[in-house]
Order: sequence, then structure tokens, then C-alpha cells
Amino acid sequence: MERENRTITHRDVMPSDSVGWTEAGKVRLFSEEEPFVTELGGRLPSVEVEYETYGALSPGGGNAILVEHALSGDAHAAGRDRAWREQGRPWRASRPGWWDSMIGPGKAIDTDRFFVICQNVLGSCYGSTGPGSIDAGTGRPYGRSFPLVTVGDWVRLQARVLDELGVERLHAVVGGSLGGQQALEWALAYPGRVDRVAVLAAAPSLSAQGLAFNAVGRQAIMSDPAFRNGDYYGGPLPASGLAAARMLGHITYLSEEGMELKFGRRLKPEREGGFGVEFEVESYLDHQGRSFVERFDANSYLYITRAMDYYDASRWGGGDMTEACRRIAADVLVVSFDTDWLYPPKACRLLARALTRSGRRVTYVNLSSRYGHDAFLVEAEELGRFLKPFLEQGRRAR
Amino acid sequence: MERENRTITHRDVMPSDSVGWTEAGKVRLFSEEEPFVTELGGRLPSVEVEYETYGALSPGGGNAILVEHALSGDAHAAGRDRAWREQGRPWRASRPGWWDSMIGPGKAIDTDRFFVICQNVLGSCYGSTGPGSIDAGTGRPYGRSFPLVTVGDWVRLQARVLDELGVERLHAVVGGSLGGQQALEWALAYPGRVDRVAVLAAAPSLSAQGLAFNAVGRQAIMSDPAFRNGDYYGGPLPASGLAAARMLGHITYLSEEGMELKFGRRLKPEREGGFGVEFEVESYLDHQGRSFVERFDANSYLYITRAMDYYDASRWGGGDMTEACRRIAADVLVVSFDTDWLYPPKACRLLARALTRSGRRVTYVNLSSRYGHDAFLVEAEELGRFLKPFLEQGRRAR
Repeated sequence: MERENRTITHRDVMPSDSVGWTEAGKVRLFSEEEPFVTELGGRLPSVEVEYETYGALSPGGGNAILVEHALSGDAHAAGRDRAWREQGRPWRASRPGWWDSMIGPGKAIDTDRFFVICQNVLGSCYGSTGPGSIDAGTGRPYGRSFPLVTVGDWVRLQARVLDELGVERLHAVVGGSLGGQQALEWALAYPGRVDRVAVLAAAPSLSAQGLAFNAVGRQAIMSDPAFRNGDYYGGPLPASGLAAARMLGHITYLSEEGMELKFGRRLKPEREGGFGVEFEVESYLDHQGRSFVERFDANSYLYITRAMDYYDASRWGGGDMTEACRRIAADVLVVSFDTDWLYPPKACRLLARALTRSGRRVTYVNLSSRYGHDAFLVEAEELGRFLKPFLEQGRRAR
Repeated sequence: MERENRTITHRDVMPSDSVGWTEAGKVRLFSEEEPFVTELGGRLPSVEVEYETYGALSPGGGNAILVEHALSGDAHAAGRDRAWREQGRPWRASRPGWWDSMIGPGKAIDTDRFFVICQNVLGSCYGSTGPGSIDAGTGRPYGRSFPLVTVGDWVRLQARVLDELGVERLHAVVGGSLGGQQALEWALAYPGRVDRVAVLAAAPSLSAQGLAFNAVGRQAIMSDPAFRNGDYYGGPLPASGLAAARMLGHITYLSEEGMELKFGRRLKPEREGGFGVEFEVESYLDHQGRSFVERFDANSYLYITRAMDYYDASRWGGGDMTEACRRIAADVLVVSFDTDWLYPPKACRLLARALTRSGRRVTYVNLSSRYGHDAFLVEAEELGRFLKPFLEQGRRAR
């Protein structure tokens, strides 16, 4: 196992509520003899996990919070990327963590109190082992030979990494969207190891409509001639297909109302004509598609959306979510957003009801927002009003 | 102009409320000297329009109803396709019209009373001139050199075809979805020529979210390597991209609730594994995508979705729909479906309000259905309860 320093603070330029310059650590696990065996029977002889941490682990070790990222996220949840600083970029021009609004000194996830860990999921393209990693057996990238991964695999691997980091017990696991499903899975898979879970903009499983959107996104990727059945590394990337998939994703992350307010039917001043970019909403999606292609791997998109499809928390109760919840020992906070139609309030409410029926301690809040599913990333202030006390109070506070 | 017989009845096999075996007619219009000039300035020296008619025009000519088709529809709105009969197919195995449940003797659109006309829109691939038609100037298919077409163009051309058919005045124009927008455009463009319009599951314009879905569908088509900037006739078709676009379309035609009831998260018994068809909803979309590719032209999909994007009825009032409605002389029936999220009740209600505010005679009904946008095709009985009396009664009934 390798570990490196991760948080370096320079009070001269950064705001006082930032965790500062951050650096990712790596853990390398498993071996040819003892491979990581996935839930669906795949085998990986070597697994690397990229992670970041913020704040300090208390002597008793009771203040660790695991933050879980969503589909296109990474381990860089807060602060600014140290690698960028080393390239001579000033603070403002450096890459902020994806949840920097929530994690920092005095923030909702308060790094003056808590030791915060974020790990990049298996199958991703941001430092942890994924389809773009080299398969030692062939000397070439895994591509489609990478095994299918599940939310259950991610959580099991995260637990292994925490063992390595010396974190025995978690004060809390917090996540939104696919990250919220990981938080829920933690409560179910390791009831003895986590005291609180916050499940934000997430449900025990994806709806038929959600499955359908993922299927179309994958169809677009696999239709791209450059995809070559996933074996495109070193050659042209399936950029067009991945862009289409991301454009579609973005429609599901925004609310209909939010899109109407933000774009309406306004035309771009510099219209391309014909089937090019004419409307502002087309321009927005086009930009989202293009920029995603520069930062994400198409195979990772396939693997991670499939994990999202397969996830079903009720399997812990033989298909009955109330039964499944009986396993849970943690206090649970469930937050939905009224305009989220990917994991709609209705689905979150059913989770809260299953928790209540099974006698668990649950707080369910449905927040109002125009931002749809994205609200869990955008509505930091409102979300913090519920998340901060949930993390800082309660029967198990130390 | 050419015209052929269209309706032939064989009472031996067909149900008594069917219009029977049908045959399309064609009208050829315009010339090199007097071309059809589109709203956006394109020129077509020759335009063919395919149409079907059912029932008989009354001596006074006051019983004509124009039925408008939606995105992927055609002129074959009712009965069974005579061409199939000539291939030796029995009644049951022949292709039914897309609105056969609504059009026929005694049905909501009663062919014992009314002379019903349905025309295929310009830009389509079902008999009317479109991007797949031969450009006489080059001897090759138009492809992307076909001019952009608009709902306004369609309605203007339909009016020309009615002139040729000897139909001066319309008792009614009826349409759903993009067909509903054509009905609305009729009321605005030809207030002196139509007495009633029924606008079903349609609004004065598409929302930002609707524009976004169309943009992603076109992105998928144009990303297909076989698309070759629209110049694919005679070669491999952009099947994969068109399939993805259609899959996406189908998500927007169904309601979230309907999808959940129909498919839920059920897995197929014969699962393909990996990123193949695993869930029933994937199988459904896969089938819809594949079968669409066999019957629709990708370029037509681009042109027709763009017409849908551009349509904005409020332009008749300088952007103010209430102002626009002052042009209307017809009685208007507006029907929305509670689970339709492509043209949601909210948007239809705004149309009804604009009509009311401008002093028009309007009936607005929001019907309950699990079928989402597709309800206008599926909920024939419920829809008929409102449409039939609207067509058969009222101040202008003759």
C-alpha cells in the first residue's frame, strides 16, 4: 500500500473556509493469488483506488466521514487540485472539488471536526482502476474485457481502502445520486461500521424511465464508429457518441422548469442554421457534450451507468425494501428535491417509508429547488441546513 | 394533377365500422417557373403530396375534415392499405391506418357524415416530396440540399391540395402532437376557411426540454458514420443513429408511470449480458429503434423535428399568443393528457387561456391517462367522447 500527503494549506490566497490545495493518494490492493472478485464473478488481480482526504482523523478515530461521488465524479471533492498549482496556476484558476461548497472548515461537512475521505469508484477513469487501465495479463487496456462492476463492489472496495487508511468505523457516509445509492449500500452492507448515512437525490433503484435513458446513452456510444467495441485506446475516441450520451444525461439532471427559465426558446445570436446550433438550449448541450468528451472515458460511462441500472437495495430483503431496512443500524437522512425527475421525491419517500416501517430512525426532507436532480450539487446552503445538524448532533455524537 | 379512387369496401372480411381498403392519391403541384417557396426562402420546382380520403364530400362541400398526422405518421390514417391486399394479404394482416380507432363509420370522426382527408407532410418519406426524393436538377436525391420546411409551409401546401380536391372550406381540422400544431396553424393562417379545430396533445410551441430532446436525437443521427452529411441514399443507412433517436423519442411519448407499470425493472428471460439487452424496457426500446429504421428516413427525421422546434404559433401575435388568437374564427377544442410531458397540460392550458382571453370559443379538457403523450393515439374512446360532439354539434353545423 502507498500513501501520500494530501492536504496542504496556503492561507495567502485561498478563502478561509477551503480545505486548501489537495493531492490525491493511491492505494494498491489485491494480487494474482488473491484477486478482487466482483459481485458478478469477475476477477481483478490488481486494483488501484485514488482518494483524497480533508481534515484530521481524531485520536479515537470516531470522526471519519466518507463522501461518495456520482456518475461522472472523482475523488477530488473539495479544495483545489495541487497538481494545477504545480503547473503554476493561481488559486482561482485551479480546479475546485465537485462538492467544495459543502466540504471545508465550518461548512456543512466541517473539516475542522471531521476527517473526510472521498474515493474514486472502480471502473472510473479518474485514477482508480477502470476499463482504460492496463491489464497486466495482456499489456493493453482492459476495454470491454473489464468485468462489470456494481455498487456493492464499490462499497466493499471502499471498506478495504478504509482498512488500509486505519479507519475502522465511519461517523457517516454521505452521497448524492449514484453517491447516495453507495451511502445506502453502506448502511445495508456494513451496519456495524457506519453510524449515519445521508442519501441525497437517490432511491433504492432506478425507475424504468431512468433505465431507458441510460440505454439510449449507451446506444449512442456503441453506435459511434470510433467505439470499436470498446477497443479505441490510442486511436480516435468515440467522441460523438459520448457527447450525445452526456447531452441526454444533462436533460435528466435539469428540471423542465429550470430549463425553461434558463433557456426557454431563445435563439443564439450567432445561429449555425439548419441542423446546427440554433437555440440556446442546443448550445448549452453542445458545450456540455464537447467538454465531457475531453474529460471522461466512454467505456467508464458504460460501466458506471450499468452499475446504476443494476443497483437495487431491496435485494437485501429479497426484493422487499422494508425487510431490507431491518439490517440498517445507522440513522438515515433522506433528502429529495421537488423538481428532480431522475430520482423523484416519490421514490425517496418510499425509501423513507420503508425505513420508518422497519423501525429505523429516519429524517426525510423534500426540498424545493428549480435545479432538478442537479440540486444536490447546487443547493449547498439549503442542503447544509439539514445535513450539518444531522452530522453534528444525534445520539451517537462523540 | 392526378387523382385516383381511394376507398374500396369489402364487407366480407372487414368490420362494419372500418373505412375499408384504402388507396393513396397523389397531387403534383408547382413548376420550374412557379416553384413552391418555403417560409424560410427555399424553392421547390415540383412538389408531390400523397393523401388519402374517406367518406364522401357532400354536394354543398361543407362536410370536409382535414386530419393532420404527427412526426412519424403518414396519409394512411384509417382503414387497411389496399397495396397490401394486392400482395395477397388478408384483412387482418394488412396495415391499419394510424388513427383507425378514431376514423370510420360511426366513429368519433364519422365517415358516414364527413369527408375526411389526410395528407402526408412535405419533407416526409411517405409519398410526399422530401429529402429522399429525386431533385430533377441533379438527378439525385435531395438529401441535405432539401430546404428547411415549417409547419406554416405544410399548412399552406395542404390548402393548395384542398383547392385541387375541390374542398373550399373545412368543417374541421383535427390533429394530435405535431398534427395538433398544424390544426392550430390552420386556425391562424386560414381563419376564413375552417370552422372548427381540435388541438390534441399539442401546444403553441415546444418547451426548452422538448427542443433539447430533439437536439440529442439529431446529434445521434448525424454522429452515425453512415449518415455522410445526409448523402447516404443507395448506400448503408444511418440505422444506428436513427434507432437511438427513435428510442429517445419513445421515452418522451410514454409517461414515467406508464413505463413503470409496463416494464418496471423486470429483466428479460433471455438476457444478453453486459451492455446488451438486459431489462424489458431496453428490449422494448431496442425493438422500437430497429423497426423504425426499416420504415423511416433519417433525413426526414431531421427535417420534421426541426419544423417541430421552429413552430411558434405566437408569431401571429408578435410573440403574444393572446394577440395571435384574435385572428382565429374557428371554435377550438384543446385536449391535454395529464401524464403527457412532451406537451404537458400546463402548456395546453396556456393555449386555452390565450383563446379565452382573446374572446374565442374554446373547450379545454385535461384527460386522465397512463399513456403520456401517446394517449392521443391510444385513448380513442375517452377522446371520442369529447371530439365527436365537438365535430357534430355547434353553431356552424350544417
